[in-house]
Amino acid sequence: MTTQTTQTDNGTVKAAFQSEIHIVEQALEAVERLMYDVVNSEVEVLRDASRHILEAGGKRFRPRVSLLSFAATGGADLMTAVPPAAAVELVHTASVVHDDINDHGVVRRGRPSVNAIWGRTFALLTGDFLFTKVYELMAPYKDLNILLAQAATALVEGETLQASAVKNKNLNSEIYFRIIGLKTAALFKSGATIGARLSGATEAEVEALGEYGYNIGLAFQIIDDILDVVGDEAQLGKTAGLDAQQGKGFAAVQDDPIASVKQKLMEGNRLERARLQAHQLVESAVELLAIIPPSPYKDELVRLAHGVVERDF
Amino acid sequence: MTTQTTQTDNGTVKAAFQSEIHIVEQALEAVERLMYDVVNSEVEVLRDASRHILEAGGKRFRPRVSLLSFAATGGADLMTAVPPAAAVELVHTASVVHDDINDHGVVRRGRPSVNAIWGRTFALLTGDFLFTKVYELMAPYKDLNILLAQAATALVEGETLQASAVKNKNLNSEIYFRIIGLKTAALFKSGATIGARLSGATEAEVEALGEYGYNIGLAFQIIDDILDVVGDEAQLGKTAGLDAQQGKGFAAVQDDPIASVKQKLMEGNRLERARLQAHQLVESAVELLAIIPPSPYKDELVRLAHGVVERDF
Repeated sequence: MTTQTTQTDNGTVKAAFQSEIHIVEQALEAVERLMYDVVNSEVEVLRDASRHILEAGGKRFRPRVSLLSFAATGGADLMTAVPPAAAVELVHTASVVHDDINDHGVVRRGRPSVNAIWGRTFALLTGDFLFTKVYELMAPYKDLNILLAQAATALVEGETLQASAVKNKNLNSEIYFRIIGLKTAALFKSGATIGARLSGATEAEVEALGEYGYNIGLAFQIIDDILDVVGDEAQLGKTAGLDAQQGKGFAAVQDDPIASVKQKLMEGNRLERARLQAHQLVESAVELLAIIPPSPYKDELVRLAHGVVERDF
Repeated sequence: MTTQTTQTDNGTVKAAFQSEIHIVEQALEAVERLMYDVVNSEVEVLRDASRHILEAGGKRFRPRVSLLSFAATGGADLMTAVPPAAAVELVHTASVVHDDINDHGVVRRGRPSVNAIWGRTFALLTGDFLFTKVYELMAPYKDLNILLAQAATALVEGETLQASAVKNKNLNSEIYFRIIGLKTAALFKSGATIGARLSGATEAEVEALGEYGYNIGLAFQIIDDILDVVGDEAQLGKTAGLDAQQGKGFAAVQDDPIASVKQKLMEGNRLERARLQAHQLVESAVELLAIIPPSPYKDELVRLAHGVVERDF
């Protein structure tokens, strides 16, 4: 493990740094290939729909957190951390496919959603298929297996709480944080924890990285929701002009319960307060890394945490 | 293991037999309790909807096959086979909840379906929740874990093939057998295989019980589809009379693509041929048990195989 990354004026160290980051990028490419391969099925619809959503890309924050947690705690062969990192991303991907059924989402990652192309029945089955593939990938990782299963349960519970809150019109800040803790932060945490456990990290390191993952997961979701509202408003502007004579526009967004609840939650200076909260969560996450020894991987974890709140995509 | 069960005129052996079968019934009750407990969640909808479908009962053929496979191959403590048996039944239960979304099923096991009571979004999430609970249960069973994950994948593939065949109107006998092999027989097989592996059975025993499970799984599904068609016809009779003035009735069934495809497949002497096929599969299953040493558990496996084709429910 390299511990001299503060000497960035040293050419040799710079080169070492770059080669170490290169290894992470290679592992992420291996994650992509593994996901692509594991969804191969003789049943064409499942294979095609799975690859459609995988090829649409995504930010891949979750597998990156997992791989970096492994490497930053002294894990030697990053390739051994690839299958669980892929499994973590597939849990997220499965939930995205099912989300688009419930939310009637027609665009995902800039492409038509699985639901839009193949219809509800096949979207439901594709999500189920991705879930079952998660467990094929995780089967060899006995003790870590349960961590991902629990995070997947939490994700489903978070989605359910969200749907309940929307239905019962009782979404408040407390419930909001419970929802995003379950549906997003728990999976980020499990990715970090699994990566650290696989490397043989100390209990303190595992704990710190788990909390790091949880905090950036919360921050990630808050920013996502802010961008959603801002995006909806931008969209609304366009739609309002475009659809005036069709009687659509504002009413269409008002009728979408999730959008309207989010908007209510974020309106006025709430939006700024939420952004501040996300930044504070990222600061806490970075502080939690104090006990991790210096390395290019640790530097990347810090960069990733900041990237979560600085992104505008 | 008792090997004297052929001496049924012996009172002592009869008592031993009954106590051994009693142990299986106790284990099945433990399966029920475990399923009930494992779906406990702070998210009420998930807990209530899961317990609703579990309490509706079901034939529990799958966990019974798994427990008997364990006991018939010398497994000592049947309680160690309870969690995987519960996991196998939960895979089936999850698929049933998702099925009712795709098929617009409103009645399941004599009660309103989850879909009918809680609506599509919560039915989808309840199915996902049950799937994630499967893997929490299976996490400690490293090598067996992959078997159930693969059977769950097969189930989803089978459901997808079925939906594709209905959509493309290309269901024929070959595709039908591929579908029921994937969606039903693979899970029966995994239950039997997992039970046998857990007991430390020989490779030959594991193989035989796996094939036994596969065959009775096929037979089970064939009978299920026959009963479905016969049931639809009985239902049709009633509906035709009842709904004559409402213009519903026959047309309603004709418009259901799955029912009409099944009907086409089963019409005329096809129905009788299918029933014969199921009986032959059961005979093969029973023959496969030849290498399993005699015991009350083996006797139960034989009885269960016959029960699969003799049921009228």
